[in-house]
Amino acid sequence: MHAIDYRAADTYAVGDVEVARWEQFALGDLLPFGAMWYEVAPGASSPVDCHPERELSLVVSGTALVHAGGESVEVAQGSAFVLEPDEDHTVRNLSDERPLVVFSVYWMACDDAPVSLAGQVAHA
Amino acid sequence: MHAIDYRAADTYAVGDVEVARWEQFALGDLLPFGAMWYEVAPGASSPVDCHPERELSLVVSGTALVHAGGESVEVAQGSAFVLEPDEDHTVRNLSDERPLVVFSVYWMACDDAPVSLAGQVAHA
Repeated sequence: MHAIDYRAADTYAVGDVEVARWEQFALGDLLPFGAMWYEVAPGASSPVDCHPERELSLVVSGTALVHAGGESVEVAQGSAFVLEPDEDHTVRNLSDERPLVVFSVYWMACDDAPVSLAGQVAHA
Repeated sequence: MHAIDYRAADTYAVGDVEVARWEQFALGDLLPFGAMWYEVAPGASSPVDCHPERELSLVVSGTALVHAGGESVEVAQGSAFVLEPDEDHTVRNLSDERPLVVFSVYWMACDDAPVSLAGQVAHA
């Protein structure tokens, strides 16, 4: 068993967000995905983010207002959201008093890789 | 974006544990791993579990006492633990008043698949 302590994690700032990536725990090839916690300051929002990885996020503390794919969805503590590859997204902390904490895992989906299909042009 | 509401999930009982597996959300091949929430009743412990999948768990609410691999580790709300393949484990709720909620993802690790190595006998 490996225990990973959120409170002992080193973080770095991205705008109003403190990010704690799991690379710091030197787990090697243990996980087939990246992982991180991030904390959005009270009343703040994450900068617009967009990446080729699919991402599963779980709200650890607080309530998030997630803007992505042309919609805005409120995600309560304990609930989750999945972001598609290349989907612009921001995550707002709906509390003006307490930080919003989110845990995410992210990975390159095999079906997002360029493939050649008969009669179709592969996307680069 | 897909939002997955913990409070709307169907659960089933395994001993003193209520399990909400993500198969019910019909996400298809969206995730390269299985996912679930489980809730351990106040003062209770999960039955001994053991499976070939590696498992990453995050404590969503409460504090867990995790027994696995011959050790016992207290895991606080927001923190995580990774269970190795075929590692017997139980998860105890340290509160006598509130449920313990854990979110887990689990997958078959490629390096756990049977392989033939020179001079070694592959495990079935």
